Amino acid sequence: MADAVDLSPLTLNRLSLYLRCLGDLEERGVSRVSSHELARRYHLSAAQIRKDLAQLGEFGIRGVGYDVRHLAARLHSRLGLDRRHPVLIVGMGNLGSALARYPGFNQGCFEVVAGIDNDPQKVGRKIGAITVRSTRDLRRLARETGAEIACLAVPAEAAAENFLALCEAGIKSVLNFAPVRLEPRRGVRVKNVDLRTGLEELAYFLRE
Amino acid sequence: MADAVDLSPLTLNRLSLYLRCLGDLEERGVSRVSSHELARRYHLSAAQIRKDLAQLGEFGIRGVGYDVRHLAARLHSRLGLDRRHPVLIVGMGNLGSALARYPGFNQGCFEVVAGIDNDPQKVGRKIGAITVRSTRDLRRLARETGAEIACLAVPAEAAAENFLALCEAGIKSVLNFAPVRLEPRRGVRVKNVDLRTGLEELAYFLRE
Repeated sequence: MADAVDLSPLTLNRLSLYLRCLGDLEERGVSRVSSHELARRYHLSAAQIRKDLAQLGEFGIRGVGYDVRHLAARLHSRLGLDRRHPVLIVGMGNLGSALARYPGFNQGCFEVVAGIDNDPQKVGRKIGAITVRSTRDLRRLARETGAEIACLAVPAEAAAENFLALCEAGIKSVLNFAPVRLEPRRGVRVKNVDLRTGLEELAYFLRE
Repeated sequence: MADAVDLSPLTLNRLSLYLRCLGDLEERGVSRVSSHELARRYHLSAAQIRKDLAQLGEFGIRGVGYDVRHLAARLHSRLGLDRRHPVLIVGMGNLGSALARYPGFNQGCFEVVAGIDNDPQKVGRKIGAITVRSTRDLRRLARETGAEIACLAVPAEAAAENFLALCEAGIKSVLNFAPVRLEPRRGVRVKNVDLRTGLEELAYFLRE
């Protein structure tokens, strides 16, 4: 029942964050946690945590809290992280190469299965566990690997054209690291990543 | 008066996001925008926008909305983006090199002023506008450049030691891209960046 509600991107990002906190607690051998303790340890809001989790039908027990492992499993399944997600990376410059080897992109349900570049000099190179393939192979690669998610790590001026190519290759979701905002099209979802947000948060705390 | 309230990281991230939307509107020549229009265009919540901006003492006029340029200037100043922030990058592998050239790190108030690596082979290389310097020069570089913010782009196993070196060099804020969670220490603020969050959001929308 609770699953029927579609969650907003901001709520999703908080749930991802809670999942990371729960993973950290599991590693530390903590089996139960209250919203207050979660909030205190990870600098979050206890009221927000309770509200977000209540949306999923999860309620902590007063004085006892949430079961860490149960809650993590629930979030995994709710976020669609209980099945495999092969990932393509388009643009194998510095950023694309870093993403191909990024642990979080090669853990649990995610796996980078191919890197793509239009530079013939790069095609055939091994980067981490993958081999760079030509942009010409995109459609075939998407079909062969079953990838529905691609990361765009090309320069701003190449973003639109590569995004179009991804749409045409049947990719469903694009994580866009190119420094230009892409709008969803033809039912292809886009998440624009802006690394500057983190710097802005830090700058705020340097004000006096 | 409204400036006295300390904003939470989640609120700050939303304000950064609004700032980006306002920048986009300015580029498109839009001078006034309602919370509803902002929410519709950028897939946000109108109620949340009004609540966040009211915290800063900004209220849209019913039927007219917010003045785009005024609101952007207000957010800039409120977020501490109205003064220069030199940025150091520690770890000049693929990720560090990408960050050194990342437009958002070299625009407006931010400027990458040096890259640092402990690999003698990398020291002296030009990457974008900067030259790679030795980790041994860290303290001097921090003093000379006046940098208070550093980005950590080293492997997980090198994160703790480099973070400590940054603290000792007088850095006040660290944007941590290393795939390991760092806790603030000695008054040094840490923002842990987890690129996987974006993938998790996309995975959610691939559920059926």
